[in-house]
Order: sequence, then structure tokens, then C-alpha cells
Amino acid sequence: MKKLINSPETVVTEALEGVAAAHPSLSVDVENKVITRAGGPTPGKVGLVSGGGSGHEPLHGGFVGYGMLDAACPGEVFTSPVPDQMLAATQAVNGGAGVLHVVKNYTGDVLNFQMAAEMAEDEGIEVVPVVINDDVAVEDSLYTAGRRGTGATVFVEKIAGALAEEGAGLAAVAALAREVNERSRSFGVALSSCVVPAAGKPTFELGEAEAELGIGIHGEPGRTRAPLTPASELAAVALDAIRADLPIKGDLLVMVNGMGGTPLIELYLMFNEVRKYLEAHGGHVARNLVGNYITSLEMQGFSMTVCQLTDTLTRLWDAPVDTPALRWGR
Amino acid sequence: MKKLINSPETVVTEALEGVAAAHPSLSVDVENKVITRAGGPTPGKVGLVSGGGSGHEPLHGGFVGYGMLDAACPGEVFTSPVPDQMLAATQAVNGGAGVLHVVKNYTGDVLNFQMAAEMAEDEGIEVVPVVINDDVAVEDSLYTAGRRGTGATVFVEKIAGALAEEGAGLAAVAALAREVNERSRSFGVALSSCVVPAAGKPTFELGEAEAELGIGIHGEPGRTRAPLTPASELAAVALDAIRADLPIKGDLLVMVNGMGGTPLIELYLMFNEVRKYLEAHGGHVARNLVGNYITSLEMQGFSMTVCQLTDTLTRLWDAPVDTPALRWGR
Repeated sequence: MKKLINSPETVVTEALEGVAAAHPSLSVDVENKVITRAGGPTPGKVGLVSGGGSGHEPLHGGFVGYGMLDAACPGEVFTSPVPDQMLAATQAVNGGAGVLHVVKNYTGDVLNFQMAAEMAEDEGIEVVPVVINDDVAVEDSLYTAGRRGTGATVFVEKIAGALAEEGAGLAAVAALAREVNERSRSFGVALSSCVVPAAGKPTFELGEAEAELGIGIHGEPGRTRAPLTPASELAAVALDAIRADLPIKGDLLVMVNGMGGTPLIELYLMFNEVRKYLEAHGGHVARNLVGNYITSLEMQGFSMTVCQLTDTLTRLWDAPVDTPALRWGR
Repeated sequence: MKKLINSPETVVTEALEGVAAAHPSLSVDVENKVITRAGGPTPGKVGLVSGGGSGHEPLHGGFVGYGMLDAACPGEVFTSPVPDQMLAATQAVNGGAGVLHVVKNYTGDVLNFQMAAEMAEDEGIEVVPVVINDDVAVEDSLYTAGRRGTGATVFVEKIAGALAEEGAGLAAVAALAREVNERSRSFGVALSSCVVPAAGKPTFELGEAEAELGIGIHGEPGRTRAPLTPASELAAVALDAIRADLPIKGDLLVMVNGMGGTPLIELYLMFNEVRKYLEAHGGHVARNLVGNYITSLEMQGFSMTVCQLTDTLTRLWDAPVDTPALRWGR
């Protein structure tokens, strides 16, 4: 295992200390693993909370800030945070207008967020959960009943976060979050495994010339293992799978995301293939993100997420955002 | 070789097509490999041009935009751009106030930028080069007479870019760029090699538990090969080397940079170690960058760059910037 760490047990807390030191705009409770905006809750604004296992950085902590999340609760690496964490985050961001839980569809996350929501409701905080399940690769999976939640989470956090910033109510923010999820589909490909620090060895083994098509963000299996093909063919595999489930038409928001170990030069090359495919199939790439946004430790590979935009979604995507990992227009 | 590419020959041009499609704020001449701001030159503003081999993304193309570079010319992977490219970039950004060439100290880059400067001068464009040589790891190196230019390049492009945006003249912008370089030192560590696409195999071999201390951004050798130690010890090795050359005192700008294959969670953990070391030695980390800014393809590892700030440097660092890879405050 080749990692810049001190010991597997302290990776998450020590990284959180680094996040706290790097970003004065954030308030980080390292002991309880809760990241919030430094300013405290915004009175009258719907609060947005997300969370999940660590190892997917910048998701979620890197998306806490104006126009996006109010809080994130990271678990241990690839491990759900506990309900107490989620409750603490929910309490911390409650500005009196209720709290949205953005939950990626993994069994542990869903159950724990549900428990946290019940505890918060007992304290009089209204909570609505939105479950993200955009990954078309598999129907059920290790850790998942139903489709996995992956890249659409970034879109939901950005777009619903912008609506909340405008002062919309909890029901409207939740409805929009659901709409973004429903309009989004993702598919990932791994060229190498990741290594969970506590395990100390690769989660899976791939041959010298193999790729895992439909990889999950924890290294869980996809659809099939196949020879590594040129980027244009990999783009087609991923987009064929997405297109089987979501019509490619109109304005699209497209993310080409690195899994953590893939250099940016390859992601731009892949984005070029994605754009060519989508345009050849009648879509228009109106907005994009190219980079590392939802990763799997040091895994080499990519995922792509396609969202059918509406005028409202485009407007909210373009709205100002000021977080460590996404920042524009303010 | 596991890469998201179509063929080694077309990596750079296809990635540039992706950059062009992803960023409407940029104008990309794919054939001649020149990236400029979409709006053309700013009349009366000093133009900033940088360039060098590809494979270090987001450097330099990701730093083209308001408050930073006016143009970047990428060469083939780890290969200097040619003088004609640099000349074309210089012509394209000439707003009548002269052009600064930000040149990393590698023999090919230095010679080619020098030739381009002479050609530009023949056309009546005043050019001043600033050579960046911040890497304390080795005195001379493969490809280099004198110290290599690495992470300080990002600081120089940001800070000198901000001064140029304020309307300062070429001599003042060049003097400030030199000052930033002189106040900055870097040191890098590799946990794995990178693979140059045209070579198809790792540039060097590291044992299962080894690290290369003092690595260059092209995989060129550092000071020594040593067993991989905990993050705190790696931070100390790098910062001891920097501190031997630059007093640690006052306000510091610190970058913990990933080499391309290192996940963000490890970079934040490393930043925490760096901060602790610097504060224990009398410095104050006043500003920071944590992420992938000057990479070496898919290499695992990090580099760190420390710059002694002044009030002027801090003000210009904080000034608005709007580029694909660095953006705040506008």
C-alpha cells in the first residue's frame, strides 16, 4: 500500500484537520466529523446536508459553502457516517426552514440518514430526504438495493443548493433535487483498483490490459470486465448504457469525472469523446465539469454523468457558488 | 500502459480539443497548440505567456484567464513547445505593453523561449523572460542546468498576473515575478512512476515500499530513494530541504500539490503535516492551495511549495482570478 498517511486508523481525522486548516470558510468538528459553513446556519434558509463514506473527496466536504451544501458528515473510508453525526449536522444547519438530506443510495447511508431524520423530527426539525440513484451500471449491487448513487449527487447538491439560497421552501427544494436525480444518469469505468487503507491491499485485481465496466465508487463490481479499449470506445460503452435509459436530446449538463488516480489530460481527452458522441446522438453539451469531483481513493478511471437540463436547471447551475471544490460567479 | 487515450500520437491534440469544448472562456488553436483568453489581448495590459511540455495539467492552460495568464503553449508530453508556438502566443496576447514569458528552468524551454523572444523583438514586441527555478531537490538535473522550475510557477503566474491586471508596466511585472520565484522553494516526492504515452512503460521503477525523494516533474531522479515512511516524516524530509534554503518565518503561502495520481484525502492529510511543521518552526501558513496544480501524468506523490509572503504578495494572491483551475473573488 503506497499512501501519504500516518496510519490507516487516523486517515479521516487527520485529513479533516487538514481541511479545517486549509479552508477558513468551513467549520470542522474533527472529533464528531461534521463540516459546516463557518458562519453558522442561515436563518430562514432550507439547510442542505449530505454525507457518506470518506474516500470520495472532494465529495461531500468540498461542496460545503454558499450556493451548495450547509453541512457534510464524512464516515470512515467507504463507511457510512453514523446517525448521531447526521443529527449533529442537521441541528447545526437548521435555520428554521427545515433540512434536506441528500443521500446516495447505499444501504448503510439510507438507513442511517433515516434514523437521523427521525431523531431530528423528534426535536421539531423538519427533514426531507432525497435519495440519489443515477448509476445505470447495475440494478442492485454490493451495499445497494436498487441503483447506486454517484455523480448526480454533485448536480443535485449544486442545483438544489442554489434554489435553497434563493429562499425556496423545503418542499420545493426537495422536489427540484428529485427532478435533477431523475434527469441524470451515470456510468463508471475503472482501469485500476483502489486500496482501502484499513485493508491494505487492492479491493479487486484487474489484468494488465483489462478494465471494469460499470465500476462502483467503492470498487464494487460493474457489468463486466473487458479488454481496455481506446477512449472513444470506452466513451461509447458508457454512453450507450446511459442512452438506453435516458434520451439524449436538448441541452445537457455533462460531467467527466476522474476516480482519483487519472490525470486531467486524460479527462479532457475523454470529455472530447463524450461531447462528440452526445452531439452525434442529437444532444447539446451546454454545461460541463471536467475533473475530480467524486472519487474512489487512488482508483484510475472515470465516470460520466449526463443530466437533461431545463431552463430552470441551467439558471440554477449557473448561479454563484463558493465552496472549496466548486466556485464561480460570486 | 493503462490510459484513457486513443493513441499516444494524438493525446495532446485530442486533450486540447476537450479543453476547447469545456471552456468557452478560452480560445484554443488546436493545430498550433496555443491557448489564449477568448476575448483577445487586453489593450495596454502586459501579456503573460507560459508554456512547457504537456502532462502537467492544469499547468499551464488551466491558468489562462482573468488575473493570471494570457496564453499558454503546451508541447507534446514532457517536451518543450517550439519557438513558433511561443511566438504565436506572444503575438496573440500583445496588447502594446509588452509580454512576460514565464519559463520553467528546463534547457529546452529556456532555449526555445529565448528564440521566441528574439523573434518577437524583431517584430517590435518587447519581451522579458522570467526563469523559475524553485526546486531545491537537486542543483542540476536531467534536462536542467541549475535548479528545476516547479510549483513556484503557479504562484508567479497568479501574483504577476494580478499585478499585470492592475495595469503595471512590464518591468514591474517582471520584477515581481522574479521576487516571487526568489521567495519560493519546492520539493517533491514520488510514490510511483508516471508513464509517458509514447514510451508505454514506467519512466522508472520503484520498489513496493520505496519513495523517490526530490522527484522531478518529468520523473527525473531526485536526491535519493528511500523506504516509504509515514506522512509526517515525508513532510519533514521535504520541509527540512526547503528550510535549509529559505528561512521559515512570517506569513507563508503554501501549496501541497498532487502529482496526478494522489487522492485529495491524502493531500489534505499531508497539508496538515506541513502546517504543523511550519508552525513548529516559526512560520504562519497564511494562504494555501491543496490539490492538483502541477502534475506528472498519473504519478502518485506530492510536491510542496513554500513562499514567503509580503503584504503586496498577499494582496495580489487574494486578487480576483478567473481561470479553469483557479478561480475566486471576482
